[in-house]
Amino acid sequence: MGVTGPLVGLRVIEISSFVAAPLGGMTLAQLGAEVVRIDPIGGAADRDRWPVSKDGTSLYWAGLNKSKRSMMVDMRSDEGRSIVRDLVAASPPRSAVVLTNAGRRSWLSYDALREWCRDLIYVQVDGRSDGSAAVDYTVNAEVGFPMVTGPAGLADPVNHVLPAWDIACGLYAALGVAAAARRRELTGEGDRVRVALADVALAMAGNLGFLAEAQVNNVARQRIGNHLYGGFARDFTCADGQRLMIVALTRRHWQDLLRITGLENPVQALEESLGVDFSRDGDRFEYREVLAGLFQRWFAARRRHEVCELLDGSSLVWAPYRTFAETVSALQTAEGGNPLMSVVDQPGVGPHLAPGSPLTFASSPKPPMPAPILGQHTEEILSRELRMSRERVRQLVAAGTVRAPSSAHADSHGVS
Amino acid sequence: MGVTGPLVGLRVIEISSFVAAPLGGMTLAQLGAEVVRIDPIGGAADRDRWPVSKDGTSLYWAGLNKSKRSMMVDMRSDEGRSIVRDLVAASPPRSAVVLTNAGRRSWLSYDALREWCRDLIYVQVDGRSDGSAAVDYTVNAEVGFPMVTGPAGLADPVNHVLPAWDIACGLYAALGVAAAARRRELTGEGDRVRVALADVALAMAGNLGFLAEAQVNNVARQRIGNHLYGGFARDFTCADGQRLMIVALTRRHWQDLLRITGLENPVQALEESLGVDFSRDGDRFEYREVLAGLFQRWFAARRRHEVCELLDGSSLVWAPYRTFAETVSALQTAEGGNPLMSVVDQPGVGPHLAPGSPLTFASSPKPPMPAPILGQHTEEILSRELRMSRERVRQLVAAGTVRAPSSAHADSHGVS
Repeated sequence: MGVTGPLVGLRVIEISSFVAAPLGGMTLAQLGAEVVRIDPIGGAADRDRWPVSKDGTSLYWAGLNKSKRSMMVDMRSDEGRSIVRDLVAASPPRSAVVLTNAGRRSWLSYDALREWCRDLIYVQVDGRSDGSAAVDYTVNAEVGFPMVTGPAGLADPVNHVLPAWDIACGLYAALGVAAAARRRELTGEGDRVRVALADVALAMAGNLGFLAEAQVNNVARQRIGNHLYGGFARDFTCADGQRLMIVALTRRHWQDLLRITGLENPVQALEESLGVDFSRDGDRFEYREVLAGLFQRWFAARRRHEVCELLDGSSLVWAPYRTFAETVSALQTAEGGNPLMSVVDQPGVGPHLAPGSPLTFASSPKPPMPAPILGQHTEEILSRELRMSRERVRQLVAAGTVRAPSSAHADSHGVS
Repeated sequence: MGVTGPLVGLRVIEISSFVAAPLGGMTLAQLGAEVVRIDPIGGAADRDRWPVSKDGTSLYWAGLNKSKRSMMVDMRSDEGRSIVRDLVAASPPRSAVVLTNAGRRSWLSYDALREWCRDLIYVQVDGRSDGSAAVDYTVNAEVGFPMVTGPAGLADPVNHVLPAWDIACGLYAALGVAAAARRRELTGEGDRVRVALADVALAMAGNLGFLAEAQVNNVARQRIGNHLYGGFARDFTCADGQRLMIVALTRRHWQDLLRITGLENPVQALEESLGVDFSRDGDRFEYREVLAGLFQRWFAARRRHEVCELLDGSSLVWAPYRTFAETVSALQTAEGGNPLMSVVDQPGVGPHLAPGSPLTFASSPKPPMPAPILGQHTEEILSRELRMSRERVRQLVAAGTVRAPSSAHADSHGVS
């Protein structure tokens, strides 16, 4: 692992759980960094997270820890903590990175670890910047998206199933490492990088204008179902019940939608009688229900196959709605396959389609690698990176300070 | 701009529109890169995107282009194209970056521009990796999330209002630049970096186990409303109608929830009679409706204020649901303010709270900067970066090859 990629040479020690920090570490591994995830004996609180395979292996954990090495260490013991410190200290110059969402523990803090490695890049992922806890679901609730997501007229909040803030936070963490690593190459200096889930959500709500709209325009954004705000896009249902998402973002898209559906005349008659101009985003949006109603009649009279042929010959941006199973099916039957996906044989899961990095570099193609099993590299890391004797490794295993998979298998999935 | 930050020294030429690429460029600017967004005369297709202020200035555009410089160039003309090429060519060694979602235009391709700058880092953001168009709404539909988001029992898809894929794609683009820039410092070589919106969505659906669950377990994920899959978390409504998101992720959270609500006994009676163990995630999830029903009665009997006091004394992770207006209000009344947010005075918008970077570096604090007005830096860049005479700049403005804001104001918001 880690033999090619723009981040080759970085050695990331990741002490993490759940989505954001593990995704950050995996992203770094996909870009060539060597990443060791260190878990407590038996695994962290995310080890059995759903979905799980029939034998209980977490598909979620496997998906978020691909291409890493794994080590189990009892980090409540002094000896375990000193193994983590020794790993940091043993990193060659300009290579050490610590990535953690447990940075509030004093022994694992930047100030403590930097004593052992002066050019350390330390990335601390928190729920909130004051160190208090927050998760994707709570930051999403408190920023505002659940109150504008979902069918118009609904009174209840609609949570995201996609942990969008965890994803953004994990990618920020990886970006923090890469940016600080460039600076370290130029200055020789390490850095302390921080990102908090709640800040990511607030920043994006601000970047996209949601907060300014409330503050400057004093507008309370309403739920508008599957419509696009300020433009024209919606889901439509075909005669066979199949659903399509149709997006008319530009004037050309709009003209193509009118042409395909043959509704130029009624739409023009509406424009003239209402005194509006549907080539303008704002007017299309104001009359979205009227327009969607006209188009829906057209879609409802045609089967998906027929509609898709017409759409394919146009500039419109569109897609079918799919279930995850249909997405997998589409990947399996795609001619030539999808270069993003490879079959990975994951212990406890079996062969399945797993994604590589959607970010690619001409300088370094990288296929996806399976996730490790917990503790798979414990002994390898102690003997290679820390140059411990076989005898010393055996002692640490016997004392329960570290664990390798064979001993883990004897355990009944103990969660810390 | 760009005087501090880990990416100081990078000069990014951004030819972009909408969310992903502009967010990528802004993120680089927030990390210290000098970013020039080059727009066609009159602005790109995103310049009037909603929400807009009362005078028509796009809050969305302003939010996604903070801290950049802006230049308007007629990129359909040979002369305009050569200005872009000259800017690339004029970049000092190890500084040039081109970031674009228009990389399919041959004059703007990697192969064309790299002739002018051998160590160019070129980041191409596409809808799909084959170059065809896709937007956040369409990739979300075709991957599967709308079919599992929203109230249980709903048959219709539920689109996201948050453009989560655009956000992830933009952050990947920024990460691609930072990682390739580190490699360039080490090897002197540029790189061609690519990321496609559809690949980002597929990769994340894979990373989070959604695809493996469909393929390996053959499970069709159902809509479960605001419940957390495989655990216990949901929204609850207080006596005063206020809603809270409550997350019991760990055993300790669960015990605290039982203690606060005083429901230990009924829950234990249920466990014994049903032969289940609610300290296990899976069992809590299976009986989520029963458990939520018990807790909801407790919440419904208490006002939010009373509930929050009890929650604050516990380990539980929770948050109130807020509208965007309530979020702005909370920011305005927060004691000491929120260090992420500053008041930015944006032309056409006025003073409003704008976020800085949620990713921070101890080496370089950076406040947020307003977005430019379109073409604000056209003349400055031609004279400083390209060392053109005043006379030459006047000629280019007169010919319509470039535009500065004074001439733009004379125009009636022409969109390309």
